Amino acid sequence: MRDWGGETLKRRKKRAAAAPLLLPSPAFIIFSLPSSPALPLLFLFSFLAAEEETRVCSKSISQSSLSLSLSHAPKNLSLSLSLSLKKNASKAPLEKSHLFNARYVPFSDVASGANLKSCKEAYDLDEVLYRAKSGGLLDVSHDMEALAIYGPEYWKALFDARAGRTVWPFGSGVWSKKEWVLPGIADDDIVSMFEGNSNLFWAERFGRDVCGMKDLWVKQCGNSHTGSFKDLGMTVLVSQVNRLRKLKPEAVQAVGCASTGDTSAALSAYCAAAGIPSIVFLPADKISLAQLVQPIANGALVLSIDTDFDGCMRLIQRVTEASPIYLANSMNSLRLEGQKTAAIEICQQFDWEVPDWVIIPGGNLGNIYAFYKGFKMCFDLGLTKRMPRLVCAQAANANPLYRAYKAGYENFEAVKAQTTFASAIQIGDPVSIDRAVLALKACDGIVEEATEEELMDAAARADRTGMFNCPHTGVALAALLKLRERGVIAPGDRTVVVSTAHGLKFTQSKVAYHSREIEGMGCKLANPPVAVKEDLGAVMDAIRGKFASMR
Amino acid sequence: MRDWGGETLKRRKKRAAAAPLLLPSPAFIIFSLPSSPALPLLFLFSFLAAEEETRVCSKSISQSSLSLSLSHAPKNLSLSLSLSLKKNASKAPLEKSHLFNARYVPFSDVASGANLKSCKEAYDLDEVLYRAKSGGLLDVSHDMEALAIYGPEYWKALFDARAGRTVWPFGSGVWSKKEWVLPGIADDDIVSMFEGNSNLFWAERFGRDVCGMKDLWVKQCGNSHTGSFKDLGMTVLVSQVNRLRKLKPEAVQAVGCASTGDTSAALSAYCAAAGIPSIVFLPADKISLAQLVQPIANGALVLSIDTDFDGCMRLIQRVTEASPIYLANSMNSLRLEGQKTAAIEICQQFDWEVPDWVIIPGGNLGNIYAFYKGFKMCFDLGLTKRMPRLVCAQAANANPLYRAYKAGYENFEAVKAQTTFASAIQIGDPVSIDRAVLALKACDGIVEEATEEELMDAAARADRTGMFNCPHTGVALAALLKLRERGVIAPGDRTVVVSTAHGLKFTQSKVAYHSREIEGMGCKLANPPVAVKEDLGAVMDAIRGKFASMR
Repeated sequence: MRDWGGETLKRRKKRAAAAPLLLPSPAFIIFSLPSSPALPLLFLFSFLAAEEETRVCSKSISQSSLSLSLSHAPKNLSLSLSLSLKKNASKAPLEKSHLFNARYVPFSDVASGANLKSCKEAYDLDEVLYRAKSGGLLDVSHDMEALAIYGPEYWKALFDARAGRTVWPFGSGVWSKKEWVLPGIADDDIVSMFEGNSNLFWAERFGRDVCGMKDLWVKQCGNSHTGSFKDLGMTVLVSQVNRLRKLKPEAVQAVGCASTGDTSAALSAYCAAAGIPSIVFLPADKISLAQLVQPIANGALVLSIDTDFDGCMRLIQRVTEASPIYLANSMNSLRLEGQKTAAIEICQQFDWEVPDWVIIPGGNLGNIYAFYKGFKMCFDLGLTKRMPRLVCAQAANANPLYRAYKAGYENFEAVKAQTTFASAIQIGDPVSIDRAVLALKACDGIVEEATEEELMDAAARADRTGMFNCPHTGVALAALLKLRERGVIAPGDRTVVVSTAHGLKFTQSKVAYHSREIEGMGCKLANPPVAVKEDLGAVMDAIRGKFASMR
Repeated sequence: MRDWGGETLKRRKKRAAAAPLLLPSPAFIIFSLPSSPALPLLFLFSFLAAEEETRVCSKSISQSSLSLSLSHAPKNLSLSLSLSLKKNASKAPLEKSHLFNARYVPFSDVASGANLKSCKEAYDLDEVLYRAKSGGLLDVSHDMEALAIYGPEYWKALFDARAGRTVWPFGSGVWSKKEWVLPGIADDDIVSMFEGNSNLFWAERFGRDVCGMKDLWVKQCGNSHTGSFKDLGMTVLVSQVNRLRKLKPEAVQAVGCASTGDTSAALSAYCAAAGIPSIVFLPADKISLAQLVQPIANGALVLSIDTDFDGCMRLIQRVTEASPIYLANSMNSLRLEGQKTAAIEICQQFDWEVPDWVIIPGGNLGNIYAFYKGFKMCFDLGLTKRMPRLVCAQAANANPLYRAYKAGYENFEAVKAQTTFASAIQIGDPVSIDRAVLALKACDGIVEEATEEELMDAAARADRTGMFNCPHTGVALAALLKLRERGVIAPGDRTVVVSTAHGLKFTQSKVAYHSREIEGMGCKLANPPVAVKEDLGAVMDAIRGKFASMR
């Protein structure tokens, strides 16, 4: 697993991270190139500089690049020149990249605003560790001073030049930001499936017709190898495990998780690609094979245990303490480092302008903190000028954060989650509650909730405009509609809704909705098939019945 | 539907198609830039040219670009310089782009090797037309002389600079090749969901462990908006329909198709995004709602007609003749223009080197011809130096092309297709038979078949290595295994298997396989859950049972 074609094991070539510069326009300087390049360039620049109508439009120079552009008015031409310099055979893209560093620190130190560089409790990422000494959460902390050595324009250009390309591993949306994610890992240890770089769908029709908005976008994180945003985090976790297995073969022999859904699918796929054994713990008789077909197909050991979900969680913790099995649960802070790149990618896709609002479905609440981290890092390193306001959208049937928000975040209380179609966020006692509260307080965030009917209707309404949304995305869309109705989000606000999984993972709920088989739900946007006879007239009547304007 | 964030309606900026050039390396030339740029450049190049150890490594000059690179031995440095030139405010990237043109011509003229530029029967793409005068297939023919005005290096650089980026519509894998697809369409008429640019997965483990190959790749075309490669073609068809609806509002009021699967899903999603009514014709009681949930969710009018599939086909042809409904069936040659970009993309992902073999599942046989067209266009325009050998992989239960191949393509006979898990290629009388025979003859192609057990086993075996394959991809993987066994494909041959859909669209067959519920099939790679008690020892025993090396 090293490339997407561009370079194979056998045929690994050095390629600059930069794209080939390219000039989509008329021939202007055509002369043959002598072996010394100085002459024609001198000629060209002297020519340009001598012309009165020529002026320098922009120039930039950084530690590693020099570029300038000139415009030449009479011919309506512009000319830009860039100089690219790289050290032959240098693997590291940056001379000071050895200073980049990320470590585990207690999340409580992050929350208290402590100076993380002099943090007393800090751990190398090569340690196998899930909790701080206090038993609390960990956080991956980057040496921001080292990253700041390279200015924002450098990072923007680097990220822009990488994502979507074939140079391993930088074509991935996650690994195009490698220095901000896991700076210390060798490229060859990375396990990647070209995740990220997903469509930022302009919801033109849904925005205009349903929300009265012109600047509404849906980030399609579910359009990914295993069909959910979990790939973004799992590529980081499994890559680090892949590294650990080389450093400490005895200490890390497999990876385990207790999950019924997207997490186990992503974990097993990435492990399968890397040849790492994976183990999924599940309560017996609670889960159908269809929900588990991804880890099963990817060769994970799926253990069906005669207990409930909490029993599985207790057991996997004991197993990972007693054996060389790495624990890939939702407490894991490595995964958030991958997930945060979706926020960086949103900024990048808007040419480094920050949207006004970002709406994220929330259950265990790791992802909202991951988005906060991504936006914060862009802001702190000067790539963007402000923070967006984050909205966490919860199912009303599993809404502990919403309740806490309404009470000013005082006295958070877990709830017993009721069944919701948004099954991946059906969580009453979220692991990352403190992370989410920090994120929301820091960016004047909002929490909204959606009932089952609201979330299913919102998903169906958006599907009519070309999407195919999972119920979790439905929760976020329903939150958007409520915030628009209340005037909290203005018609002109640039808003991004985060779609967390592909609708193909949740077809059962869609079938139930469009069959009007959901008890107590109107399913008012159901669009069932229309039965007609094999007759031209009958068919045309049915067509005109649906599309009245059809002649 | 115009952008992926980079430029909105309100904030449309001019951006060069080129990526920002970028120099991942040590500071070398740091001096402040005077308003005339000639001096420091003169200084720099004089300095370099004067040094004995400096030599010019490469230089290239085309009608629109100039680049050169120098290496400077003592300091182990290389320097590259590019000049970029573009015309301000010019929408067209190419001065001679008005010469680019694509028209419909009879496929029979393509097959006979006629000079297509002077073809007597030719039609503008803005005509609503499905067949040639003879009743035969049409083909979209490009003015290759006009495209050849720009050299291969130009096209390579242009395509490389576009795919995966945010500039509308060129970030799409299809529309990054717009001039080769639909040169005449306005960017604003394009209906795109960032399709293409899919992962070219290096099947490292499957290649090494199962096939004894080091250079095996799987092109993940199913990782797409609606989950199948059909998006590649449908973005082209729906974009052209979108254009036609503006040119001829009365003539094109809706789009219809008779399809049970991926085609109707792609059609309805793209139509929904553009606000175009879509209609799906289906035999009553033959199809489950689950198979149709995508068009239903996307708001298509799904007609359930009391006839069989052939009856639906007859009816939709009458309906489209009698009404302003555009026919989006598999005869349609526009779709192939989008699908061919997957072949161009494969070349691009291999830095414009051509793989030895490309294996493609085949039913209606349009896609194998589309791949041929893509590879041929790269070859004819000088971007690549040869053609790959194509392999068409058919299910043994629906193998008319395989039978014809065995008989030297003489006297093709349709068959009655038997049920196959590879339901999208369960076709006994393929529309594009002539297209496929042309493609296979031209590139010394092969046809192979796979039984139900072979295709399910092959898919399951590959899933174990991190993929999640649909049964059609299973057919192609099984064909690969047979060709390796017979020594037709050598261990070192660079081989690409085309995966046509996401496995999430075909979970039922996977569930059946892993439950060992398929009659008469061994399901020897089934990996069902293992039941254990809630006990640390029992769990560890189960783990050691699966992973013997675990301590």
